[in-house]
Amino acid sequence: MRLRDIGERALLKGLAPLGYPEGAPLPPGDDAGGVWVGEGAWLLKTDGFLYREVALKGMGPFEVGFRGVAATASDLLAKMARPLGFTLGLFLPEDLEVDFARRLVEGAAEAARRLGAFLLGGDTNRGPEVALTVSGFGPARAPLPRKALPGDLLYLAGDRWGRVGAAIRAHYQGRALEAFPLIREAAFYPLPRLELLALEGLLRGALDSSDGLAETLWQVSELGVRVDLEALPLHPDVLAFAGGEEEARALVLYGGEEFEAVLLVPPDRESEVLARAEGAGLPLFRAGRVGEGEGVYFRGEPVPRQGYTHF
Amino acid sequence: MRLRDIGERALLKGLAPLGYPEGAPLPPGDDAGGVWVGEGAWLLKTDGFLYREVALKGMGPFEVGFRGVAATASDLLAKMARPLGFTLGLFLPEDLEVDFARRLVEGAAEAARRLGAFLLGGDTNRGPEVALTVSGFGPARAPLPRKALPGDLLYLAGDRWGRVGAAIRAHYQGRALEAFPLIREAAFYPLPRLELLALEGLLRGALDSSDGLAETLWQVSELGVRVDLEALPLHPDVLAFAGGEEEARALVLYGGEEFEAVLLVPPDRESEVLARAEGAGLPLFRAGRVGEGEGVYFRGEPVPRQGYTHF
Repeated sequence: MRLRDIGERALLKGLAPLGYPEGAPLPPGDDAGGVWVGEGAWLLKTDGFLYREVALKGMGPFEVGFRGVAATASDLLAKMARPLGFTLGLFLPEDLEVDFARRLVEGAAEAARRLGAFLLGGDTNRGPEVALTVSGFGPARAPLPRKALPGDLLYLAGDRWGRVGAAIRAHYQGRALEAFPLIREAAFYPLPRLELLALEGLLRGALDSSDGLAETLWQVSELGVRVDLEALPLHPDVLAFAGGEEEARALVLYGGEEFEAVLLVPPDRESEVLARAEGAGLPLFRAGRVGEGEGVYFRGEPVPRQGYTHF
Repeated sequence: MRLRDIGERALLKGLAPLGYPEGAPLPPGDDAGGVWVGEGAWLLKTDGFLYREVALKGMGPFEVGFRGVAATASDLLAKMARPLGFTLGLFLPEDLEVDFARRLVEGAAEAARRLGAFLLGGDTNRGPEVALTVSGFGPARAPLPRKALPGDLLYLAGDRWGRVGAAIRAHYQGRALEAFPLIREAAFYPLPRLELLALEGLLRGALDSSDGLAETLWQVSELGVRVDLEALPLHPDVLAFAGGEEEARALVLYGGEEFEAVLLVPPDRESEVLARAEGAGLPLFRAGRVGEGEGVYFRGEPVPRQGYTHF
C-alpha cells in the first residue's frame, strides 16, 4: 500500500496517535499537539510545504517565509495558544542565491514580529528543491479542541474568506490583481489573528481552516454533527472579481490558505462572543449552525467535499 | 552569491539573528533558541535532514525516525532543557510504502518514549525524496550557552565517541558490524542523555556535538579560547575496529552524528561535576582544557578543521 493509495487524511489519521500522550490537552490529530504543564498547556505545531506549491505569481521568498509562520501560528491561535516563537527548517538547493534564503527568513521574521513573537533559529540542509518546515510553540491556559455539539452556531473569523480563493484562481488564470488590493494582501500576507485570544473560554470548539472552507466544514461534520450553512461572507471585491454570487461562493468554499478560524459557539454565549470580538476588533461572520446528523449543506443543498490533499 | 559559495556555517551565521529576540536565554546561533517565561526559559529546536544522507547500511525508517528525535533532543539537553514533546515534518514521495512512513514515526516515538517525552503530531507533504524535520521543546530553569573561559576543563559526555565514526566508516567500506554491537548500537540508536540535567547550574558552557568532535572543538575555539586536547576516549571496540591508536583517534575526531555533549567545566566545580555525573550514571571523559589563544591542538599538534557541512 502506497501513500497515494490511501491519501493524506488517512495517513495522518494513522500516524497521529503514535507516541501521543494520553490525557493530553488536545486529542491526536487536532490542529496542534501539546502537554500539560502546571496550570495550563504548552502547544507545539509543525507545518511543512514546498515553495513551488504555495508561491503564487508575484509572491517571492519574503511572502513564502511569511506564509510559513502564518500557517503555523494560525493553528496555535485557533487552539487559544499565544505563539511565542518559531523555528524554520529549510531544505535548499546548493545553487540557490543566498539572498533568496535571506528573504525567506526575513519574511518569516516579519510575520513573527507582527504576532509579537520571534524566530528562534532553525536549520538549513541541502535538498533537491526549496522546502520549508515551520514550527511554533506557546502556552494555552484553556486549549480549545475541535468540537461541535448540535445547536452550536457556526462562525467564521476574519476577512480572508473568498479572497485567497480569488488570488489562487487569478494565479492559474494569469489574471492581474492590481485592481484588487485586499485580495492580494489576503493571499500574500495572511496574518493570523491574535484577537482570537479574546474569545478564550467562550467557545465550544475551533478549527484552523487552510485546505478550503468546505473541507474544514466536512471535518466539523466528522465530529458528529450536520453542518447547515445559511450564509457565506461575500466581500464586494470578491463578488467583483468572481463576476457573480455563485462564483464568489465557490471561491469562499473551495479556496484554501486562508489561515482563518472556524468557530463553534454555544447559543447562550453568542452575545458575549460578539461583544468580545467587537472589542478586540475581530471580524466575525455567522454562517449557520450545526445539528444532529451528518454532512454539509448550504441552504439545504449538499456541499461536495473537495479540498487540497498532499497525496 | 550562491549557497555553495558561502557554505552552511556562514549562511546560518547570517540568518540566525533575523527576528531573534534581544536578551534571549541563549544567543542566536546557539544549539537551540528560546524565550524567557516567568522564572525560566522555554527552548525550541528544529533539525532537518534527508533520509538518504543519514541512513547507514542496516538502518531502516525506524532507526532514521529515532535518529531524528535524538538529534533534536541532544541539542535541547546540552542546553539543560528537558524535552517534553516533539513534532515531525515529513516530506514523502507519493509512491512510498505506507508502512515505511509508519516505521519512521514509530522510531521517533520510541526515542521520545525513552526520553520520557511524547510525539505531538506533525505534518506530511508530498516531496521529491524522504526528508524529515524534527522539532522539540521544553523548559530550562538555567539555560546553558556555548561558553568557554581560559582555564576551563574540557569534558566529553557519553560513550559514543569514535563508535559512530566507526559505523560511518564501516558503511562506506562495506564492512559488517556484527562483531561490534556497541558500535552498531551507538550509530543506530544514539539516545541523548537525560543525565546531563544532573549537572544543571555547575557548568560554564556546553555544545552539542553532531558534525564531528574536531568541528565542535573548533567552534569552542571560536568562543575566544585555545583548545588543548590531552587525551581522547578510545574504547576497546573502536581500537579493535580501527586497528590502531591513530586510526581510532581519527574516528573520534572526525566521526559525527554522536549526539553527545562537549562540556566546559570551571576547575573549582570539577569535583562536584564528577560526583553528580557518577550519581546520575553519566559517563564523563576529561579530554583537556581551554586557555588563552585560539585553535585546537592535540598534545601540542594542530587539529585540522574538517567536518560535515551541508553546502
